[in-house]
Amino acid sequence: MYKLVMIRHGESTWNRDNRFTGWTDVPLTETGVAQARESGRLLREAGYDFDIAYTSVLKRAIWTLWYALDELDRTWLPVVNDWRLNERHYGGLQGLNKAETARQYGEEQVLLWRRSYDVPPPPLAPDDPRGQRHDPRYAKLAPEQIPLTECLKDTVARVIPCWNERLAPAIRAGQRVLISAHGNSMRALVKYLDGISDTDIVGLNIPNGIPLVYELDADLKPIRSYYLGDPEAAAKAAAAVAAQGRA
Amino acid sequence: MYKLVMIRHGESTWNRDNRFTGWTDVPLTETGVAQARESGRLLREAGYDFDIAYTSVLKRAIWTLWYALDELDRTWLPVVNDWRLNERHYGGLQGLNKAETARQYGEEQVLLWRRSYDVPPPPLAPDDPRGQRHDPRYAKLAPEQIPLTECLKDTVARVIPCWNERLAPAIRAGQRVLISAHGNSMRALVKYLDGISDTDIVGLNIPNGIPLVYELDADLKPIRSYYLGDPEAAAKAAAAVAAQGRA
Repeated sequence: MYKLVMIRHGESTWNRDNRFTGWTDVPLTETGVAQARESGRLLREAGYDFDIAYTSVLKRAIWTLWYALDELDRTWLPVVNDWRLNERHYGGLQGLNKAETARQYGEEQVLLWRRSYDVPPPPLAPDDPRGQRHDPRYAKLAPEQIPLTECLKDTVARVIPCWNERLAPAIRAGQRVLISAHGNSMRALVKYLDGISDTDIVGLNIPNGIPLVYELDADLKPIRSYYLGDPEAAAKAAAAVAAQGRA
Repeated sequence: MYKLVMIRHGESTWNRDNRFTGWTDVPLTETGVAQARESGRLLREAGYDFDIAYTSVLKRAIWTLWYALDELDRTWLPVVNDWRLNERHYGGLQGLNKAETARQYGEEQVLLWRRSYDVPPPPLAPDDPRGQRHDPRYAKLAPEQIPLTECLKDTVARVIPCWNERLAPAIRAGQRVLISAHGNSMRALVKYLDGISDTDIVGLNIPNGIPLVYELDADLKPIRSYYLGDPEAAAKAAAAVAAQGRA
């Protein structure tokens, strides 16, 4: 049996400001730093240890990982950054306030953009300064690989290759894997692992900074999964995430 | 022509307390964090950019790198941790106060242990709890590869293979390399690059948290080298390092 642990990054400045973030590279708030350290403490107190860590190329997930590793006394572990673990690209919504957007477009439209499986938000124009075509961290990608917007289906389409090529082989090789990622890259992975339908995934919300443990069988099928720490706190935090798109 | 940048970690708690540190894994002080961030700012303001970073498996160098990368907006760069970039192992002196040790053994003996090329401090006993034989970060090393003490010559003997196998090939491949390391692993590398004699290396001190730039020719021979920022500040900081072993 294998174990896999994922953490959604701690609160970022744009989580705090209730803005759509996507691939915008915003830092953690002080609350986010505390959440990141707490996630590491929870793992340490529960006796977890790791051999390798994976994260995105966005600093809110990277710093969350670094703080968690520090609490685990594992700052020296190998860390792999993979853009495919990035948050879903939020297209033209990036930078907008979620509640204002709901007042402008209606809560239903915002819920559709936030949670529908295959309706992407309006795309960025290719030359929009909010885009990533000139960002050196994506320099090795073909321009058409750099999204201008994504629905969750698009995110799944890049997260699963990362699972197949990197994460699953590492786990099968006996490596104890820690992932620090984002709400929607984690939803993509959870959808795949748990076989959640395109409809049911809409209702799944992942709280910030609480380690999510998967116990996997020899075929990497989930036996069970759970949040570390206080289950009520995890449920409350997930409900708060769900409420973000209200006007 | 190539450029290579090295940073000695910011002030650690044991730098502050004037204790021999070696392979003991102590954190940065607040001053050390500020120095680390400042080193990143200096690099950014001078227009430096990097493709890959190398550091040791000790958190004072790792966190220094992380803070510097944050200032450079390059938290997503690949980071390679190599134990061969660790500080010189200080053997039985690890944990002792440098001034007290000078009072007990004499300044001359301490200077000999600190700076002589081939006289190691007294070794740790193999079962000394200050040793690293049960530390998981060294689990892949053979027990005889994990030092019980080192003179600078021993440090050179592990740093140069790291240069030959990892650093030099990366630089030759056109990668812009940033190294965050330690006083003596940097002295080892500087000795090798600049062809400094076993005698003259005794007088070389490297300040904390100031980027040291090497301009290298096509054969990776140094053309010139210099500290970024205020040269007087760098000279003062180096002199302070030199003074640490006085009673």
